[in-house]
Amino acid sequence: MIYTISALVNNQPGVVADVTAVFRDRNINFKSISCAETEEFEVSRLVITLDCESAIIKSLLEEIANLSAVSEVDTLERNDFVDRQMALIKVGFTKDTMTQVMQIFEVFRADVVSMGQETITVEITGDEDKVDGLIKMLRPHGIRSLCRTGVVALKRGDE
Amino acid sequence: MIYTISALVNNQPGVVADVTAVFRDRNINFKSISCAETEEFEVSRLVITLDCESAIIKSLLEEIANLSAVSEVDTLERNDFVDRQMALIKVGFTKDTMTQVMQIFEVFRADVVSMGQETITVEITGDEDKVDGLIKMLRPHGIRSLCRTGVVALKRGDE
Repeated sequence: MIYTISALVNNQPGVVADVTAVFRDRNINFKSISCAETEEFEVSRLVITLDCESAIIKSLLEEIANLSAVSEVDTLERNDFVDRQMALIKVGFTKDTMTQVMQIFEVFRADVVSMGQETITVEITGDEDKVDGLIKMLRPHGIRSLCRTGVVALKRGDE
Repeated sequence: MIYTISALVNNQPGVVADVTAVFRDRNINFKSISCAETEEFEVSRLVITLDCESAIIKSLLEEIANLSAVSEVDTLERNDFVDRQMALIKVGFTKDTMTQVMQIFEVFRADVVSMGQETITVEITGDEDKVDGLIKMLRPHGIRSLCRTGVVALKRGDE
């Protein structure tokens, strides 16, 4: 099962290294990581997604919660939160495929951010399925570069 | 100066821990980190932004390049690449401030992704200045939660 771990951590040197070492020590490969400042300068939010069993998640959370720089850590349940990721994708095009490529962008509401003689770079925002869907449609046209953010997630509603 | 470090790394356990340990060992606090899979399953792209002096950047890059799981690492120059980040922001509103809050969203082209009785959650994509600008405008209305991705970046044009 895919889990999304969200933690509030001190904005100080070494925190990401300490948290990710917990995964390295258990030889666990997470899918993505994202960490940046929040509305309070001294606090960062770190989000890690990974595919693992529920027993493992429980002990990972316990170990992460024990780190001194971590003030809060939890997993987010799919129905309770809004999750988004973004990707920049550079895809090849020719005179003949241009219209088709632009139509794919339109369907996925991907915005063109840069264009060359042979490639177009677009930005897409959405949940994992949407980003994966666009990548699948563009693959036959030749993906030259792809840069994906980790996931960001907030609880739905007022909580 | 703000630097954006982009690296291609093996998609395997421990890589993010090893790279971030380089920063921890020098007591350097980076601004953001983002790492996720690329178009090739066995390769991930890792992007770190940080504010530091040029002499430090050079030795950091050397040390990161020496890690066995890192196949490519470089800094991206501002003019050469498209950089984007995303944020989810939950902000408070009342009957009286609703219109004003919605107008701010419109100016920044922020999309509403969830709404409660007292808060609205929006998604914003852009460069750091744009995301910072929206946060500044929303702060007086009470930011309840904020989750920011790290930066993603690709070279402009066909390269």
